[in-house]
Amino acid sequence: MSIIKTIEELESWSAGADRKNRTLGLVPTMGYLHEGHCSLIRAAKAENDLVVVSVFVNPTQFAPGEDFESYPRNIERDYELAIAAGADVVFNPEVGEIYVPGSSTFVEVTGDITKKLCGASRPTHFKGVTTVVNILFNIVRPDRAYFGQKDAQQALIIKKMVRDLHMPLEVTVCPIVREADGLAMSSRNVYLSAEERKQAVCLNCGLQKAWEYLNSGSDDSRSVRKLIEVIENHIKGQDLAVIDYVRILDGETLEEINGIEPGKAALAAVAVRFGKTRLIDNRVLSVEVR
Amino acid sequence: MSIIKTIEELESWSAGADRKNRTLGLVPTMGYLHEGHCSLIRAAKAENDLVVVSVFVNPTQFAPGEDFESYPRNIERDYELAIAAGADVVFNPEVGEIYVPGSSTFVEVTGDITKKLCGASRPTHFKGVTTVVNILFNIVRPDRAYFGQKDAQQALIIKKMVRDLHMPLEVTVCPIVREADGLAMSSRNVYLSAEERKQAVCLNCGLQKAWEYLNSGSDDSRSVRKLIEVIENHIKGQDLAVIDYVRILDGETLEEINGIEPGKAALAAVAVRFGKTRLIDNRVLSVEVR
Repeated sequence: MSIIKTIEELESWSAGADRKNRTLGLVPTMGYLHEGHCSLIRAAKAENDLVVVSVFVNPTQFAPGEDFESYPRNIERDYELAIAAGADVVFNPEVGEIYVPGSSTFVEVTGDITKKLCGASRPTHFKGVTTVVNILFNIVRPDRAYFGQKDAQQALIIKKMVRDLHMPLEVTVCPIVREADGLAMSSRNVYLSAEERKQAVCLNCGLQKAWEYLNSGSDDSRSVRKLIEVIENHIKGQDLAVIDYVRILDGETLEEINGIEPGKAALAAVAVRFGKTRLIDNRVLSVEVR
Repeated sequence: MSIIKTIEELESWSAGADRKNRTLGLVPTMGYLHEGHCSLIRAAKAENDLVVVSVFVNPTQFAPGEDFESYPRNIERDYELAIAAGADVVFNPEVGEIYVPGSSTFVEVTGDITKKLCGASRPTHFKGVTTVVNILFNIVRPDRAYFGQKDAQQALIIKKMVRDLHMPLEVTVCPIVREADGLAMSSRNVYLSAEERKQAVCLNCGLQKAWEYLNSGSDDSRSVRKLIEVIENHIKGQDLAVIDYVRILDGETLEEINGIEPGKAALAAVAVRFGKTRLIDNRVLSVEVR
């Protein structure tokens, strides 16, 4: 097996792989794989007969001036890691293979779910994501697709797209994989200087402090305003950190909430810049129904 | 076999119909079937083992004030006609079955192809069409889908959506079916009064006159401006006809053209109102390469 570059090759593999009687899991990635991606591939392999990992740095989800050109790439290493984690095929198409000449069709999830959080700072981002994921689903036709909770908003949006459009597959969201010090794994972590890398742990620590405050028993422990303050104060303690957003929203719709309600998941999400590098992290906050 | 109302029922039929070894054709309709629809069903039956006809008056392709509520419906008659023409299943879902609660995902083809012709007078129409057709394709998962050339712009847009999103099916466009006097068959023809019905033949006659002029050998016979004038003058001869548009555009992209070029198809398209009723018709114009 080698790296598959074209849809035609992928279809001929698919035709030979007895797809009719076997299940297939797809792990869509932008490459530069790390342990987070590998955990998705292992999850896919555990639940499906066949696993396809797509490696495609999707231009339509980058705005002008973002890091499309400089996004880290290493397809040979990706191939080794993907196969080692259980992939059967690595699909690495060119841009012109995914977007046919004159392509002008978009899939867009509208509403708070795409407008809040990263949708506010990157207004065209998720339209690019849903369009390319829709295309990959149509090409690969998986039974299940795997996404990381690291990109919590993306995962919610893709689940909604699949539900709204009745796409014939299941979406599985796998837990965030972290470095030893708690930094969420990300291909963009390689952009960080040594000092930035050290301070970057503040995203996870801030979220952890919110979790602790929520369970502290204080009078205002369920107040979204207070919990955001806890996170912001922690991150502001790092001199290289510039907050893009700290938000706590409804865990499914991303609508505004004032407090954490028992039995209802909320999503605490942060985006922080270190120099030119923008990092995100999140934690689901919930309190038990008594 | 009876009318299938839910996705669950359709899937259980699909599971029992040995879909893995048989091909399926889908004919998406808004019901109130006429001979035009039946010709699509027969074409589908000729090329596929199984045929599903969907009957769904799609609210998202009607603007406020258009005829969504009053659109003619007769599901029992549709069922009889569809089965007689060769359908295996008539799928007639409720609105809430197709659009899940909170549904907010849209599929949109952008560019001239959706902005011109009916897209100009009905700016949200095609976004509703592509969204519902995408959903129906995902639910029914046909090998082939059939549309009428009567809705020429719709057919071009759906072909483009399928191509751009790599949807795994073929789109077939079938010729316009006409009444004895040349009026293109349409469910909306029932809205016409006797006198309007008589005058409505002017759409086809106007297009016919353009075709004749194109082949007349006159100096300006390939001039789009002249050909539009020929059509408009003919339609204006009918006192109840109010022209919405008469356009001649590139036959694939719907971009503006000045003349009919040898070997390149152009689409002559007209929309005319008779009272509250809006009728459309079209003809592909081409001249041979010498």
